[in-house]
Amino acid sequence: MTTNSAAFIASRAALAQIGDQRVWSIIVTLFGDLAQQADDRISGPLLSQIIEQIGIKPEAMRVALHRLRKDGWISSEKSGRTSMYRLTDYGRKQSREASFRIYARVLNLPDVWHVLVAKPMPKKERTEYSNALIAKGYILIGTGVLLKNGPAGGAVTDAFVIEGNQFNVPDWLRQNIGLEQMQDAYKLLQKTLKSVQKNLDRDPEISTLEVVVLRVLLVHNWRYLVLRSTDLPQDFYPNDWSEPSCRKLTHEILDRLGLPSLAQLNLAFE
Amino acid sequence: MTTNSAAFIASRAALAQIGDQRVWSIIVTLFGDLAQQADDRISGPLLSQIIEQIGIKPEAMRVALHRLRKDGWISSEKSGRTSMYRLTDYGRKQSREASFRIYARVLNLPDVWHVLVAKPMPKKERTEYSNALIAKGYILIGTGVLLKNGPAGGAVTDAFVIEGNQFNVPDWLRQNIGLEQMQDAYKLLQKTLKSVQKNLDRDPEISTLEVVVLRVLLVHNWRYLVLRSTDLPQDFYPNDWSEPSCRKLTHEILDRLGLPSLAQLNLAFE
Repeated sequence: MTTNSAAFIASRAALAQIGDQRVWSIIVTLFGDLAQQADDRISGPLLSQIIEQIGIKPEAMRVALHRLRKDGWISSEKSGRTSMYRLTDYGRKQSREASFRIYARVLNLPDVWHVLVAKPMPKKERTEYSNALIAKGYILIGTGVLLKNGPAGGAVTDAFVIEGNQFNVPDWLRQNIGLEQMQDAYKLLQKTLKSVQKNLDRDPEISTLEVVVLRVLLVHNWRYLVLRSTDLPQDFYPNDWSEPSCRKLTHEILDRLGLPSLAQLNLAFE
Repeated sequence: MTTNSAAFIASRAALAQIGDQRVWSIIVTLFGDLAQQADDRISGPLLSQIIEQIGIKPEAMRVALHRLRKDGWISSEKSGRTSMYRLTDYGRKQSREASFRIYARVLNLPDVWHVLVAKPMPKKERTEYSNALIAKGYILIGTGVLLKNGPAGGAVTDAFVIEGNQFNVPDWLRQNIGLEQMQDAYKLLQKTLKSVQKNLDRDPEISTLEVVVLRVLLVHNWRYLVLRSTDLPQDFYPNDWSEPSCRKLTHEILDRLGLPSLAQLNLAFE
């Protein structure tokens, strides 16, 4: 085993403190970043190395892989005595869909949004109605009032709908939809990303394996926030909204690290 | 006294059955139609003739004139032994503002509308908040949710606002905002206006005084509905919405009747 670089050790420590720590979720991020193409395979030994370097125990990895195979995300096959892991078609589809949001360098806001006002109904029924829409990406902004990007489309018939792109967004609404907590989370990520940048400035020499591990941790942290954020009209965001800065920093660091060749990695860790 | 024409008698009877029967309100309509300019005066004798022909008793007219003077709408002065009545500056201003809506030949809908979502608040407070907005021309479409024509403007700061001009309007909302009752009222007016047209076709010769009285009754009936209607986006109206037909019929009959000269009327009824 080689010794890890100082930049890697410090950056990994910073990135390990935030975000989603579920092992299966980290493995999904890894496959999405390194092996999203149909022919991509990650060998068992390489997978073990990456996971170990992230700081996850082998038993936890085995449990997570078992779950991912059971859920149809990942499959494995033998190549000689080596297990080769890949995303299933289903896993690739999920991964690709999430990638549009995760890897977008610029947030493209839609031209139009719509606000839906539900028919008057008893509270319990209204809550169920609202929750069904929230599951489809709507944001609750009032009693039976929900906002979503894009036009309403023909699917909404029994609710009042107005489409538009001019808004007034009061502070109570920013608070109610949790934008302040999101801002806190983005600020923490921003601070972490800046420290990773400084580590890499000070000590640019890091190994290919370290690059892969840092990429996974970076993407995983960014992904954790960006997939939890619903796209909102610009007027919703506070003036010092840190999401664009985090997006820029994430891409700067990923570009600087580069994407190692999966084939060479597999060879190096046979 | 001359005998009234058959067309007048039938039309007056039809028009007297609907609308706002308050005498002061009818007098306001009369001044708005016949004497809205700064120099316009209606002599006491002419006023009495018109009011009597409408079917209002002299005592009721005196009470209404007393109220209108007290409220600053109308003032009177003596010219020799004759009282001359006119709108005050205040009365003219009110009359002019209403005239934009009453006499418009085409309903000009605004390019943009806004929906306002109030801050979460207790029911009693929310009702007061909503009622204050309804008094400003908003329409309640949900719990703390109100619609109005035009942009929200800078006045709305503590509510969420979306501006737009694309809508989906479900039937329950049409019912809730009373469009069905309005449609019934417009249909009744439409029927009445058509009968007035027929009366005039059959028997076109009517006197100048009869013209004035019919105009007042026509404008008063139309005004009663149109000032109660809030402008709404086109999508709100049912396909067979009768307001445009009533507007067209009202103008056709007014054009046909013409507007008699106030000076000649005053001379004729000295």
